[in-house]
Amino acid sequence: MTKSSSIPGKVWLVGAGPGDPDLLTIKAHRAIEQADLILFDHLISREIRALFPKAVPAFYVGKQKGLHSLTQGELNALMIRQARAGKNVCRLKCGDPFVFGRGAEELLALGEAGIEAEVVPGITAAAGCTSAALVPLTHRGLSQGCTFITGHAERDLTINWSALANLGHTLVFYMGVSAAGMIQRNLLKNGMTGTIPVALIENGCRPEQRVVVGCLHELEELVNRHGVHSPALIVVGDTITLHETLNAVQTRQSSGCDAELQQRLTA
Amino acid sequence: MTKSSSIPGKVWLVGAGPGDPDLLTIKAHRAIEQADLILFDHLISREIRALFPKAVPAFYVGKQKGLHSLTQGELNALMIRQARAGKNVCRLKCGDPFVFGRGAEELLALGEAGIEAEVVPGITAAAGCTSAALVPLTHRGLSQGCTFITGHAERDLTINWSALANLGHTLVFYMGVSAAGMIQRNLLKNGMTGTIPVALIENGCRPEQRVVVGCLHELEELVNRHGVHSPALIVVGDTITLHETLNAVQTRQSSGCDAELQQRLTA
Repeated sequence: MTKSSSIPGKVWLVGAGPGDPDLLTIKAHRAIEQADLILFDHLISREIRALFPKAVPAFYVGKQKGLHSLTQGELNALMIRQARAGKNVCRLKCGDPFVFGRGAEELLALGEAGIEAEVVPGITAAAGCTSAALVPLTHRGLSQGCTFITGHAERDLTINWSALANLGHTLVFYMGVSAAGMIQRNLLKNGMTGTIPVALIENGCRPEQRVVVGCLHELEELVNRHGVHSPALIVVGDTITLHETLNAVQTRQSSGCDAELQQRLTA
Repeated sequence: MTKSSSIPGKVWLVGAGPGDPDLLTIKAHRAIEQADLILFDHLISREIRALFPKAVPAFYVGKQKGLHSLTQGELNALMIRQARAGKNVCRLKCGDPFVFGRGAEELLALGEAGIEAEVVPGITAAAGCTSAALVPLTHRGLSQGCTFITGHAERDLTINWSALANLGHTLVFYMGVSAAGMIQRNLLKNGMTGTIPVALIENGCRPEQRVVVGCLHELEELVNRHGVHSPALIVVGDTITLHETLNAVQTRQSSGCDAELQQRLTA
């Protein structure tokens, strides 16, 4: 509902989660339904966009590598202008706004302009996609923690590779596909063994999800051989050894459901 | 709806998120509503328990330090027995089932027993509570990643403190309050500076949330001075410097909403 123009609107900085519309939170769903304007990121899935109310204007403001629709400054200015004009704005981001989402930058800009803003957390890709791909982040005896890092930074990527390679728990790289070779070399050079399992999760939590599993020494080769493309997460760690077992269990259950159909077909 | 007893039920291993019922996912909400039996953890909030359908039996199966209601084996056996009897079971866990949630253990046990099971990811405390407390996990120029570790393990806690202390990004300790002194000493001993900011988030995402901010060299003292109790997260890292600014913005906005009321009171 548009407020009277003398009262400024509010901005919700909303995490949309990993892509599956059923993994939106109740709060995110409500923000989508109550907004006067929706500004959505690159990678907001088709299924989630289908939930946008027909009467509400929705604009793509995403950033793809080498293809920026709006600069961050222009986007901040747009949100401030629209809120000042009385519009309630739903700024819809992939995953969680505070995990590689520039949520704090936007919150600061809105705050400085005196605009009311609220962060709505979402399921970050590293959690949502590993669940869907049956790759646990932690597991007793295998991993007592997890680390999320980005494989791509706008300017300098500052990673302490020696620290990272020696944590002894699950690592998840966001935006790392095009940097797979660099990740592989740096982890190996800093003492990680080449036989540690890796998983590539492409289009996680979406109907077209694909999971490729192998070892660290062949990470770059896996990307090339299987033609893995962004969006994809790179997971490194011992919990990936559970993937095959968990997946076999799942597959056995699924085929169990079709046992009757199979019997009829083979009769 | 209970299926006929010849058809086994299904088990949903559901992440309930950080406590705010509005941060449940659509899928978690649906599992709660469709279950024939709910088995819930310690720390599932009163507000979430209020959403359980009245007619559906719901049992506490949580584990508190030193107070176990059921062993993990007994709990697995209970889920298997109930599913075999045709019940659809919602096993409700705090946060995300794969982040310190034993989700994979339960999934393996169910799978081995031939029970259909599905993991429903949730917002893990480290993401949900930091959003609510206005402590960003990542921020350009301050932190290019985040690490979640546990401060408490059933048997041995194996942390590479040297690696952890030198990551140069945000650290979040789960279940760390009673280990605050140990965390402080190990990080300092391994090269972290004492002036790096720390935040304690107690009862995150709940009406009674409390945030205490200070520096690493006084972490244990902060816990004692402010009487911080579990459930609480310990966050360590430079993004905490944004907390005060973000909080001031939020407070200014809240008081702005009450400006009319204040005018009337002071008139």
